[in-house]
Amino acid sequence: MQICNNIGTNKNGHLTFAGFDTVALAKKYGTPLYLMDESKIREKMRAYKSAMKAYFPDGSMPLYASKAASFKHIYKIASEEKIGIDVVSVGEIFTALKSGYDLATAYFHGNNKTDEEIEFAIRHNVGHFVIDSIGELEAVDREAEKQGKIQRVLLRITPGIDAHTNKKIATGNVDSKFGVAIATGQAEEFAADALKYKNIEISGYHCHVGSQVFDAEPFVDAVDIMMDFAHRVKEKYGYEPEILNLGGGFGVRYVASQPELDIKNSIKDVAKVLYRKCSELGMNIPKILMEPGRSIVADAGMTLYTVGSVKEITNFKNYVAIDGGMTDNPRYTLYDAEYTVITASKATLEPKYRCSVVGKCCESGDIIQENVHIAKPERGDIIAVLTTGAYNYSMASNYNRIAKPPIVMLRGSEDYVAVKRETLDDLIRNDI
Amino acid sequence: MQICNNIGTNKNGHLTFAGFDTVALAKKYGTPLYLMDESKIREKMRAYKSAMKAYFPDGSMPLYASKAASFKHIYKIASEEKIGIDVVSVGEIFTALKSGYDLATAYFHGNNKTDEEIEFAIRHNVGHFVIDSIGELEAVDREAEKQGKIQRVLLRITPGIDAHTNKKIATGNVDSKFGVAIATGQAEEFAADALKYKNIEISGYHCHVGSQVFDAEPFVDAVDIMMDFAHRVKEKYGYEPEILNLGGGFGVRYVASQPELDIKNSIKDVAKVLYRKCSELGMNIPKILMEPGRSIVADAGMTLYTVGSVKEITNFKNYVAIDGGMTDNPRYTLYDAEYTVITASKATLEPKYRCSVVGKCCESGDIIQENVHIAKPERGDIIAVLTTGAYNYSMASNYNRIAKPPIVMLRGSEDYVAVKRETLDDLIRNDI
Repeated sequence: MQICNNIGTNKNGHLTFAGFDTVALAKKYGTPLYLMDESKIREKMRAYKSAMKAYFPDGSMPLYASKAASFKHIYKIASEEKIGIDVVSVGEIFTALKSGYDLATAYFHGNNKTDEEIEFAIRHNVGHFVIDSIGELEAVDREAEKQGKIQRVLLRITPGIDAHTNKKIATGNVDSKFGVAIATGQAEEFAADALKYKNIEISGYHCHVGSQVFDAEPFVDAVDIMMDFAHRVKEKYGYEPEILNLGGGFGVRYVASQPELDIKNSIKDVAKVLYRKCSELGMNIPKILMEPGRSIVADAGMTLYTVGSVKEITNFKNYVAIDGGMTDNPRYTLYDAEYTVITASKATLEPKYRCSVVGKCCESGDIIQENVHIAKPERGDIIAVLTTGAYNYSMASNYNRIAKPPIVMLRGSEDYVAVKRETLDDLIRNDI
Repeated sequence: MQICNNIGTNKNGHLTFAGFDTVALAKKYGTPLYLMDESKIREKMRAYKSAMKAYFPDGSMPLYASKAASFKHIYKIASEEKIGIDVVSVGEIFTALKSGYDLATAYFHGNNKTDEEIEFAIRHNVGHFVIDSIGELEAVDREAEKQGKIQRVLLRITPGIDAHTNKKIATGNVDSKFGVAIATGQAEEFAADALKYKNIEISGYHCHVGSQVFDAEPFVDAVDIMMDFAHRVKEKYGYEPEILNLGGGFGVRYVASQPELDIKNSIKDVAKVLYRKCSELGMNIPKILMEPGRSIVADAGMTLYTVGSVKEITNFKNYVAIDGGMTDNPRYTLYDAEYTVITASKATLEPKYRCSVVGKCCESGDIIQENVHIAKPERGDIIAVLTTGAYNYSMASNYNRIAKPPIVMLRGSEDYVAVKRETLDDLIRNDI
C-alpha cells in the first residue's frame, strides 16, 4: 500500500514519483536529491483554499507556513495560487520578496524579531506582524512611526491546548516561548496594551495548537477558547477582532499506519463551531486564517540517495549506508521521526530485508530510519525516503562539511531545478 | 567559579574572553557571534602533541578531528602547529586543501565514502584512508590502481567498548554503523582481506571508543583489546601494525559540575599499558595516533547573543529569547547538551534569575538551555554561551532561513574575522 497517490512503480521495477522514474532522476541529477511534486503542492494549496472559501467567511485564506520549505520558487507557487504566506525571519521575507511575492498577504511570525528585521519588514510592506510580546509592540510601533506607516498586526495568544504531540513541537500549552497566555490573565493585559499604540492597528488574534494533528478537535477547542477570550476583551475594551488566525498543525502521513487528513471535513467541522460560538456570544464572525506548512509540502517531497555500503553485523543488525543523512534530513535524530523507506531501484521486489538506514556523517546518531524492511540493496542501488517535503531542505546543515542537495521540481512531464546543488566552493565562500 | 581560564570579568562589569570585552566585540561585529580563542586552540594542540611525544613512540601524533569545527583558518593553525588532521568528507578535504594544509598527514574517515570522494582524496594525496568496510577496500584499491598510486590505509575496527556516554554519540559498541567488529569475528576477516589488495598498503588499525570521556580507562581498554586483536592477526597472517589510532573522545567541561580533563596524565596512563601489553605479547610498539576534536576547540569557543525579549509566564517560567538558537547551536535540541550561560553585559551581578534561554526559531524545541540562573537581562543585553567551539558552527543550519554567524578569532590583542557572516544574498544564491 502506498502512502500517497503520487507514488508508484513502473515496468523497470523502479519507484515512480509524480509519474517520473526515480532511478532515472537520480542518474540525471545525482544524489542525494530532493524531489518536489509541484502538482501535489498546488493541489494541497487549493484544497485548503477552496474548503476555507466554502465554509468560512469571505476573506478567509490559508497562509503557507513557509518555514516548512522556503526557497524562491515555492513563494512563486503561493503567489500563483493566490494564497498568503507565514514568514518567520528576514531571510524568509527576503526570499519571498525576491521571488516577486506581494508581501501584503505575508504574516511575520517569531518570538524574537530583531530591530533589523522589524525595520526591513515594515519597509517592504509586510501586511501583518504576528506580535509575540508587549516588548515587540513597542518596537514595532516605534519603527512604524519612524517610517510614517500604520502597521497591521495580530496578537499571538496562547490558548492552553495540549494537542498530544511530541513535546518539542507542542506550542499551545501555557508554558511556551510563544505568545501570551490566556490562563494567566496576561493575554487580556496584552490586548488592552496593544490598543494604545498609535502606529499599530490590531486586526485580530493568532493562536497555534501544535503539530501533526489529524482531526478538527484541537482547532474546535481553539475556536471555543479564543472566541471566549475575544468576547471578554470586547466586553472590557470594546475591541472586536476582524481576523482569527488558527495557526498550523494539520498532520501528514509519514508511514502507512498513520491516518490521512481530511482537509475539507476538518475545516467544515471547525466552521460549524465557529458560527455557533459567535452566535452564542453575539460576536461578528471573524475571517479565519490557517497556516498549513507541513501538510502542503510534506508528501510533495521525496529524497533519493545512493547506497554506499551494506554492513551486516553477525547476530546484531544490518546497516545500509546512504550518501546523505542527518545533514539533509535531521528529523530522525531530532525527533525519532518516522519515514517510509523504499529501495527505489528494486521497488517491485519484496521488502524483506530488515536494516537500519544510516547516513554518511561521522556521528552515530546519523540515522534516517531504524529497523525498516526494504528490498535488499547493494552499493549503487537507489533508496527513496518518502514524505520529505517539509522540514528537510529547510533544516539542512553543512555538518561534516557536506554540501546541500538540490531541489528538483516535477511538473507534468517536466523536471527542473528550483534550488541548485551546493558546490565545494559554496562551502568555503565565507572563509577568509 | 569559571569553567575555563580564558573567562573573566572587567571593570565595566562585562564578561571577558581571552582578555577581550565581550560586549565590545558584540557591538563591533554584531550578534549572534562565534568567538574563538586562538591561543587556547594552540595550547590544546600543543598539550596533546607534547604529551604524545613524551610518552608514545616516535611518530605518534594528535590528529585534529576537524568535524568539530571545520573552516580554512583552523587547518592553517593545525598546519602551523605541525599536527595531523582527521577529515570526514570531500568538503573537509577541500577546505583543508584551500587553506594550504599538506594532506600527507590527513586521515580520511567515514562509513560511506562515495566514489567521487575516493577519487578526489587519492588525487590530492590524502595520506591515509580509514577504511570502514570491505566494500570500501575494493573501491579504494580500484581507484588507486587507476591513478597509479599505492594508498596507505588504516582499518577501522570496533573494539566493543561502551564508554557510558549518550547513546547518539557512542561508537565503540559492537552494534555500530562504523567499522568492523572484533567480537563477531568479522574484524579478522577484514584484516585478512585487506592484505590481498595490490594498491593498498595497510599502516595499521583505528578504533574509537565514544565521546565525553574524562579518564584514560576506555583508551586503556582499547589498547588492550586492539593489541590482542593485532596479535591474533600477526599470528595468523603475519601482519603487524605500524600505527594504532585510538580515535577521539576526550571530554570537555561544559558546566562547572564536570571535571577538567588531564590530557598529560591520561596519555601517560595509556602509554604505560601500551608498553606493558606489547611486551607481554612480544609485539613491536606501534606509533599512536589520537583524534581530539572537541577537546581542542570547545572551550576555545564562545557564542554571543543579544536578548530580544524577556517573557515571564505568571506562576510558570521565565523565557529569555536571544537572536540565535538551534540554527547556530543545535546541541540542546539534539542531545539535551549542557552549557554555561552568562549575562555578559551584567557579568558581575548575582546570577539569580531563573529562566530558560531560548532561540528565535519558530520551533518549541529551539532552546539553548533550560532553567539556568543568570543576572536578569532585558532587551539589548548580551548573553554569552560558553564552550561552543565544537559542534556549533559545524552543525549550524539555515533553518527558518536564518543566516549563519561569523567566526571571529582572538589572538593576543588582535581580533579578526575567520569566517564572514552569511548575507541575505547568500541564502538565495542557489535559488533559481
